[in-house]
Amino acid sequence: MGMEMVLPSVLSISVIALLVAAFLARQVLRADTGKPEMQKISDAIREGAEAFLARQYKTIAMLSVVTAALIFGFYHFNRDVKNIAEMGAGTAWKITLSFVVGALCSSVAGYIGMFVSVRANIRTATAAMSSLNRALQIALRGGAVSGLAVVAMSLLGVGGLFMLFGGMRDYQHVPLQIVGFGFGASFVALFAQLGGGIYTKAADVGADLVGKVEAGIPEDDPRNPAVIADLVGDNVGDCAGRGADLFESTAAENIGAMILGIGLYPVFGLGGILFPLMARAFGLIATMIGVFTVRCDEDEDPMDALNRGYLVTTILAMIGFAVSVYLLLKPTATSGVAVHKGYLLAAGIIGILTAYAFVWITQYYTEYKYRPVRSIAEASRTGPATNIISGLSVAFECTGLPVLTVSAALMGSYWCGRMALDGAPGSGLYGTAIATMGMLAPCAYILAMDTFGPITDNAGGIIEMSKQPEAIRQKTDRLDAVGNTTKALTKGYAIGSAALAAFLLFRAYLDEVAKVTGKEMTVDLTRVPVFVGGLLGATLVFVFSALAIRAVGKAAQVIIGEVRRQFRENPGIMKGTAKPDYATCVDIVTAGALRQMVAPGLLAVLTPVVVGFSFKYLSPHGQIGAESVAALLMVGTIAGILMANVMNNGGGAWDNAKKFIESGLFMVDGKVVGKKSEPHKAAVVGDTVGDPFKDTAGPSLHVLIKLLSTITLVLAPLFIL
Amino acid sequence: MGMEMVLPSVLSISVIALLVAAFLARQVLRADTGKPEMQKISDAIREGAEAFLARQYKTIAMLSVVTAALIFGFYHFNRDVKNIAEMGAGTAWKITLSFVVGALCSSVAGYIGMFVSVRANIRTATAAMSSLNRALQIALRGGAVSGLAVVAMSLLGVGGLFMLFGGMRDYQHVPLQIVGFGFGASFVALFAQLGGGIYTKAADVGADLVGKVEAGIPEDDPRNPAVIADLVGDNVGDCAGRGADLFESTAAENIGAMILGIGLYPVFGLGGILFPLMARAFGLIATMIGVFTVRCDEDEDPMDALNRGYLVTTILAMIGFAVSVYLLLKPTATSGVAVHKGYLLAAGIIGILTAYAFVWITQYYTEYKYRPVRSIAEASRTGPATNIISGLSVAFECTGLPVLTVSAALMGSYWCGRMALDGAPGSGLYGTAIATMGMLAPCAYILAMDTFGPITDNAGGIIEMSKQPEAIRQKTDRLDAVGNTTKALTKGYAIGSAALAAFLLFRAYLDEVAKVTGKEMTVDLTRVPVFVGGLLGATLVFVFSALAIRAVGKAAQVIIGEVRRQFRENPGIMKGTAKPDYATCVDIVTAGALRQMVAPGLLAVLTPVVVGFSFKYLSPHGQIGAESVAALLMVGTIAGILMANVMNNGGGAWDNAKKFIESGLFMVDGKVVGKKSEPHKAAVVGDTVGDPFKDTAGPSLHVLIKLLSTITLVLAPLFIL
Repeated sequence: MGMEMVLPSVLSISVIALLVAAFLARQVLRADTGKPEMQKISDAIREGAEAFLARQYKTIAMLSVVTAALIFGFYHFNRDVKNIAEMGAGTAWKITLSFVVGALCSSVAGYIGMFVSVRANIRTATAAMSSLNRALQIALRGGAVSGLAVVAMSLLGVGGLFMLFGGMRDYQHVPLQIVGFGFGASFVALFAQLGGGIYTKAADVGADLVGKVEAGIPEDDPRNPAVIADLVGDNVGDCAGRGADLFESTAAENIGAMILGIGLYPVFGLGGILFPLMARAFGLIATMIGVFTVRCDEDEDPMDALNRGYLVTTILAMIGFAVSVYLLLKPTATSGVAVHKGYLLAAGIIGILTAYAFVWITQYYTEYKYRPVRSIAEASRTGPATNIISGLSVAFECTGLPVLTVSAALMGSYWCGRMALDGAPGSGLYGTAIATMGMLAPCAYILAMDTFGPITDNAGGIIEMSKQPEAIRQKTDRLDAVGNTTKALTKGYAIGSAALAAFLLFRAYLDEVAKVTGKEMTVDLTRVPVFVGGLLGATLVFVFSALAIRAVGKAAQVIIGEVRRQFRENPGIMKGTAKPDYATCVDIVTAGALRQMVAPGLLAVLTPVVVGFSFKYLSPHGQIGAESVAALLMVGTIAGILMANVMNNGGGAWDNAKKFIESGLFMVDGKVVGKKSEPHKAAVVGDTVGDPFKDTAGPSLHVLIKLLSTITLVLAPLFIL
Repeated sequence: MGMEMVLPSVLSISVIALLVAAFLARQVLRADTGKPEMQKISDAIREGAEAFLARQYKTIAMLSVVTAALIFGFYHFNRDVKNIAEMGAGTAWKITLSFVVGALCSSVAGYIGMFVSVRANIRTATAAMSSLNRALQIALRGGAVSGLAVVAMSLLGVGGLFMLFGGMRDYQHVPLQIVGFGFGASFVALFAQLGGGIYTKAADVGADLVGKVEAGIPEDDPRNPAVIADLVGDNVGDCAGRGADLFESTAAENIGAMILGIGLYPVFGLGGILFPLMARAFGLIATMIGVFTVRCDEDEDPMDALNRGYLVTTILAMIGFAVSVYLLLKPTATSGVAVHKGYLLAAGIIGILTAYAFVWITQYYTEYKYRPVRSIAEASRTGPATNIISGLSVAFECTGLPVLTVSAALMGSYWCGRMALDGAPGSGLYGTAIATMGMLAPCAYILAMDTFGPITDNAGGIIEMSKQPEAIRQKTDRLDAVGNTTKALTKGYAIGSAALAAFLLFRAYLDEVAKVTGKEMTVDLTRVPVFVGGLLGATLVFVFSALAIRAVGKAAQVIIGEVRRQFRENPGIMKGTAKPDYATCVDIVTAGALRQMVAPGLLAVLTPVVVGFSFKYLSPHGQIGAESVAALLMVGTIAGILMANVMNNGGGAWDNAKKFIESGLFMVDGKVVGKKSEPHKAAVVGDTVGDPFKDTAGPSLHVLIKLLSTITLVLAPLFIL
């Protein structure tokens, strides 16, 4: 295959994927929207979600413009400094443009995804009245719009900029110039995930505390003024937030792998640089086919149907991966290196297996079939305190297996890379890059399953609130339960891929610094400023988590006050004679979440910048700023991976410990102990504690660790004296 | 001062300190033991504590013998390997002997401390009947026995081994041979702190859950069969456990600083190696004087009196420190280096200030005068879930200031060291070593204040259980409140000094490896196995915490079952007509705690060993095993410092949020909300969650990070191909 054909093929496949997404969207939108009372609820959710997104994007846009101006200024006014001058002509505007395009693509992908998901919910609910298969397909295809849009936009952005900047000729500099795209994507993702995460849990906790605890009305009761805000939250958190998260994963990982490809140019030529894009394009094709194969029988577990689709996608993606390896990763005529392609493919398979391992580990720690969740339920017998202690113990423990998996994957794929190229310099790291690409190949399908979650959750809420018959509710409940599982799995997958991709991005950063300084770069923790950098990186993760968790509490306080006010001033609401004012609740939590996302967001962005700029003067040795930031990045990533696991799996385990007790399977002394029992009350406390863990702090940490990488990549040349 | 006089002086001062400790012990034991009903309780506590210690030491002794045999074997059978041979003649038996002596000294110091503290409690209680000052003095002097014994034994051990192995002649090798002493101390400390920590919280949680929650009887009610076990727990956890913790701190830090002194031998000669011992000896003198100055008026806050004593000790220690600097840190005739002693003193002062900063930060995060604790109390209004969320948010946040402090101290003292010696190699690190010594100078006094905690706590319990008049109870309550503060402060101090000392130990490890391999050592996180080592180190901290927390839960379950059985089988207990069987509870929780301490203990010991031995074959580059372990150690230490702060301060904040509500100062809408209110119940949940955090996992993490250092120091030569 001629190298000049690769980019056009990748871009064409991306466009086709967008067309397929449009086709799926049209298919979903054409479906029946059911009864007027259901439409009223769905309309309220849609309006709330769109209002939130509009205001959130406005805030993000303002922050982005300031950041873009700063980036341009830094590069423009330092354009004659040796470091910057060597990055190539027009670096200032190219990096800035990349940032803006990255931010825009991320926002557009997020918007498309949510546009469909807030419309798919009612159609899923309506379809559930006639056929489970139909409901499943609408929800998954609605989710696939998001998945395809995210991956296609990221490919179009990276591939398009590469072409625009003349990357086929200037392959040395262009990947370094489009790192701005990754930073733009992370920047939007950070605020999207933080804002969305704070929104969804503030609304959830607020609605529960006043509704369930104080007023004694059930969940999703239409008398609760915060109930619409709660349903809106599922969309802005899980759909728009996670979409932005995985958008940045794919973007950052593409760019990082391309930068590593530069190092291997003598071996593979342009093929090594373009390989990541090609592999991803095949992943898109695999997802499109995989989504269309999903169907289920009326009495089948819908999870089985989704898993079959995942398997189809994975197999196809692997085949595409193998094709990419054979087409692009061949030695150039002048390289003089033998390439053992089987090892490269093996590295990719390690990535795929890692994805499976993470999904399995997540299930083990969060499903009530297994010991951890059962131990939390068991501990609920002695009250909320032991429930929390036991949950925290599970949360801390669950870092072990994922880390062993990532460690094995890193070492294994590193070894494969070295074997593939007979130990050529950079070959081991390219092996880890290939593993990461393997892991991310079925990304679009995973994202479709993730967005399936809020769609089915909303469908259930609509059925519940509009008081549809029990039989239909059971169907949507089944879909909702599957959605909860897929949401948890996606988080496991997201953190696993972030962990693997992190090493790639470190290396890209170090390569960039080495390129600028002309010296091989180390990150030597034995040097005091470097160690302090690492210490600060880990601390950033802890303090960031604290701020994210606290933000939920603060935003929830606001909505609690508003709901109490409505109950007090309008007693008709509780009697069911007056309609509560949903819109004000939505407004209030929107404003609250956006205000609360700023502090943790700025902390994350500013810490590496401040360390990089201030430490660079500490030593006559010119790289100390860059090296300290590298330590901040690497140790921060380690802490981030661990804490994200603690938050995600801990939260998931608490949630399902409660569900286990509700399921009627929990027995004490041979008697079923279920809803409204004392252990159940204790488990509800655990679930509430876990909410901001798993839906705000945890997912935001995924983004944080990638943001640290991309921001340092963009600013690296400025951290060097 | 002639160098040959230094060691004899240090050893003499240590012996004098032990004599003073004996004098204090005699003074305490001569005091009045009060009424028979009080003696009965005190006897039960004493018997329980001594029985626990006896069984615990038996377990530890068995584990130690196995470990000593393994160490001897490793070194003996590798004695002809180049690495080992170069460590000097008789390395195998010298390291093994050091290990055994370290383990023994730690055990003896712990035993002495607890021997006095379980006898001082009743004497403090009796003295409180007549005079607050008298009670304060008995409790503090009882505590000082522990403080003096710990520091003196550590000096005698290190100094004695140094003399015995001929360190004055063979200064190059001997400090590396006595690292075994540090490992022995850490080994005992790990199990002492884990076992004691699990015991104290299992008894506490167990007694509370069955007594307060199920049976509805107050705390320290004599009808509760677990009440004696609870009081025993305070001694074995806070007194014996923390004593072992600080014993190892002083021992490890002495040895680490001596190893750094070897590097500066060309500058300071033997003076640089002996300086740490001399500075510590002056700290002992300062403590002896400081303790004798403490007295308080009947209506004074006893904390003020203790603080005055701390100030006196600190000032005297500083003067002694300055004297040591001027006597020992002078350039040798051949060095050709100018020494600016003012900078060395400045580094010491940075250490002292760091100690103060940590104490202040701990107070800010754990006292109810300040925002964090009040925010938790405030969050208790909406129930246990928000109490927990808010507490966790405070716990994660509170890592920020300590890390900034440590970072500033490291950078500042590093800079001082370089300025002092005009940037000679190793001078910066010696600056950080001097700061650590400064911080640890008043260590014996801090430890006396710490042991003051369980003594006054027990005194309060004895007064309460023997139903003494309200006026006396108020006095012991005041002392108990002070004891709670000092216990919290000591934990802040212990983690701060561990953080500072860690860097010293890393460097000692690296110096040792460099000595063996003859190559300068780096810890370069950009290499895959090194990064994986770091990842595993951080994960070890999380999983270890999980196991420690879970151990409390499991041991508590056992005691809950026993108390329920006694209540069920002997209804007379609740009526007050029959005496509960305290001894069985004490036995059961002893057995439970000792069983549960093994798993986390072995995990901590084995992880670095397994990584070191398995990674060393990963690369033809011979240092990869040692380098990966170094990363494990350094990143593990970073994670350990953060998690220990989370655990200690989070637990302290929850505890005091509850006390704040109990104090009657907590107002909602202008009305006092106090005991038995809903917010109080929520705060009790938080307090219970915080218990295993602050008294089991947190303190065990201090020990863990030092154990990682000492175990790797001992095994370093074996990790190299």
